[in-house]
Amino acid sequence: MASILIQGATILTMAGPDHEIKDGELAIEGDRIISVGPRGSHPANYRIDRVINGSGMAVLPGLVNCHTHAAMTLMRSYADDMPLMKWLSEKIWPVEDKLEPEDIYWGTMLCCLEMIKSGTTTFADMYFFMDQAAAAVEESGLRACLSRGMIGSAPNAGQALEESIRLIKEWHGRAGGRIKVMLGPHAPYTCPPDYLSRVVKAAGENQVGIHIHVAETLDEIEQIKSSYGQTPVGYLHQAGLFDLPVLAAHCVHLDEADIEIFANNKVGVAHCPESNMKLASGIAPVVRLLEAGINVGLGTDGAASNNNLDLLEEMNCAALLQKVATGNPTVMPAFTALELATAGGAKTLGLDDEIGILEAGMKADMILVNLGRPHFYPAHNLIANLVYSSSSADVDTVIVDGKVIMEGRRVLTMDEEKVMWESQKRADQLFSKV
Amino acid sequence: MASILIQGATILTMAGPDHEIKDGELAIEGDRIISVGPRGSHPANYRIDRVINGSGMAVLPGLVNCHTHAAMTLMRSYADDMPLMKWLSEKIWPVEDKLEPEDIYWGTMLCCLEMIKSGTTTFADMYFFMDQAAAAVEESGLRACLSRGMIGSAPNAGQALEESIRLIKEWHGRAGGRIKVMLGPHAPYTCPPDYLSRVVKAAGENQVGIHIHVAETLDEIEQIKSSYGQTPVGYLHQAGLFDLPVLAAHCVHLDEADIEIFANNKVGVAHCPESNMKLASGIAPVVRLLEAGINVGLGTDGAASNNNLDLLEEMNCAALLQKVATGNPTVMPAFTALELATAGGAKTLGLDDEIGILEAGMKADMILVNLGRPHFYPAHNLIANLVYSSSSADVDTVIVDGKVIMEGRRVLTMDEEKVMWESQKRADQLFSKV
Repeated sequence: MASILIQGATILTMAGPDHEIKDGELAIEGDRIISVGPRGSHPANYRIDRVINGSGMAVLPGLVNCHTHAAMTLMRSYADDMPLMKWLSEKIWPVEDKLEPEDIYWGTMLCCLEMIKSGTTTFADMYFFMDQAAAAVEESGLRACLSRGMIGSAPNAGQALEESIRLIKEWHGRAGGRIKVMLGPHAPYTCPPDYLSRVVKAAGENQVGIHIHVAETLDEIEQIKSSYGQTPVGYLHQAGLFDLPVLAAHCVHLDEADIEIFANNKVGVAHCPESNMKLASGIAPVVRLLEAGINVGLGTDGAASNNNLDLLEEMNCAALLQKVATGNPTVMPAFTALELATAGGAKTLGLDDEIGILEAGMKADMILVNLGRPHFYPAHNLIANLVYSSSSADVDTVIVDGKVIMEGRRVLTMDEEKVMWESQKRADQLFSKV
Repeated sequence: MASILIQGATILTMAGPDHEIKDGELAIEGDRIISVGPRGSHPANYRIDRVINGSGMAVLPGLVNCHTHAAMTLMRSYADDMPLMKWLSEKIWPVEDKLEPEDIYWGTMLCCLEMIKSGTTTFADMYFFMDQAAAAVEESGLRACLSRGMIGSAPNAGQALEESIRLIKEWHGRAGGRIKVMLGPHAPYTCPPDYLSRVVKAAGENQVGIHIHVAETLDEIEQIKSSYGQTPVGYLHQAGLFDLPVLAAHCVHLDEADIEIFANNKVGVAHCPESNMKLASGIAPVVRLLEAGINVGLGTDGAASNNNLDLLEEMNCAALLQKVATGNPTVMPAFTALELATAGGAKTLGLDDEIGILEAGMKADMILVNLGRPHFYPAHNLIANLVYSSSSADVDTVIVDGKVIMEGRRVLTMDEEKVMWESQKRADQLFSKV
């Protein structure tokens, strides 16, 4: 792979107090960053294959989307403004019942295309037919943590776990390490204790983490309390889940004991503000989680409940929502919001030894944002501008694993027109069956 | 002015139940729409100067931004994540004290540029040095309701009212009717009763409406109750304000009696969700206001507290916020959110005889949105896609008063580079004085 020198940009390393370098220089060799600093700071013996002129641009770590269901992009705007259970049982589940592997491939391709165009470089996905999802990720050039969603109470629960273990063997570490596999027990209310025990055992044996929905709605809290006499977090804790690395999505309704369990066990939280707002699930206590030292990242959730995969928008929304929810405009300042979308997301996924900050030795995952837009003028504060005023179309260039996958907003790893066309065709076929 | 035929687009008229016309045709002559319907529906004797191919586009009424302080765009991202009074007294007011007329011109130009690029065609502004603001509006091609903000308790209160009356005489109805003038008493807590009486009298004599901040924070409610024994709305009602057309911005904290006063007096409400969230002011009871039959539009507020002027983003946020605030995902469905940003905004500004829906006889204010983007695929529901998944950069073409002011994202009425450059220069000079 070639070496790339990005020159003249403002670099937001998101690492430490000196996180903003004006007229900076970032050198990439292969899949790694080899130096970050002011102009001229690259190593003397560095052989430059290519220079990217970053003037008028900000370089920042690629955004990390900690929770989505990529192929659900086929269901974008199919059913909105409905109560959660009605939406699931009358609209989403009947469609999911008809999904074929080819749908997953094109749905995931469409999702990856949209994520690349809005600056996401890594995402955590939970769905099914995950071989097709993995193939799409490999092709797109993105980095992903994939999990086969498992409904422990369903007739195919055993088969789903077997599929998951096969997925680990076939895909974990593939695509030059861009693909990781996790186990995906769906949620406390769909996974009974014995199933969770089997999942915990399998995760331990295969040395992978767990991706699960937790405490998304008040209904869930009531149901788990009435079934097990515990909160969802307490229930999962007792099942031994938190002995392993866990990515817990949503976490809208937590009590102090839950938060202590999360903090003591280094559970990562995927905060999904727009999905939680749209489905009226509630507002996660993110400020409290951060105070407790818990790793928090941002997630869009699936496009069926968002309805886009725009992490810049999610970041803005996350900041504004915490302010109004706490009645305190000083909480979740712009830097914290950007941290959640980058370094925080990397920690939440357990990938912070590879991504999330721009520093020598890290994987070369980053985005260049075009600052030459009216909504970035005047240039008082770059981070506030990015968090509160940016738009997905400001993302100009996307680099993952040292490879340029979008440049001047043109995606280089896939045929954009074909992805839109094929996903429309799959959606038309799919919805004609419902 | 030329006649323009837009052909082949999906037209969202926002008028009545048949509000979506596929493969539609919209004919413009001069500053007016003369027909809207399916392809081939333009009048037989219609002389076509120009055809715009709308295929792959949605045409909708231009967005209406019901509350902003345009020139504050110079203060974008200057001070964030602070409590309101500290932000005003330590950051905003010291800067405003140094503002010169030329700053207002370039700040308003920058604001207009950003609004055009994100699909806004009409806005309601309150600030000072309004001749410069009006000149910028005239040049930009936008439609605006301008008001000189008046602090009734300030030493220059009398002069401000005189300036306002002069502004009416010089600018009301100018720019081919694109500019209207309103009186802008700042807020209940800055305008004592005798001053409000003078404002009401002047508005009546000059037959203009009133633009005012109302019930933005709990502090304001307490202060007015302690000073006058009434809610801010009750206080303004007693001063006779609501005998005139009133545009009330924010309205976060209202009781049932306030809502009844608004409904009985046809007060229009400018709902500013992002500003209210960012400053932690609270969440306006928009669902309740709509139930009560009150006209509600959307506002961005100034860029210093938002930090952009993106009404598409505001529309998404308004819908999501009402859902989570009420705990009900069915409230504020996508169509209602889009209505707030278009027809509702027009009613709120008292301009619904001219703008807000696409219908023969209305002013030709509209935008074309490019649907050929990954985040609009698949095409299940156009309105849900626009409300929940769009981005400002999807706006391709903007027409105001029958004139194309942006095409293919290139703004035709101003030199974009110059506006960014000059506003940066003004900001640099301005902030060097603080």
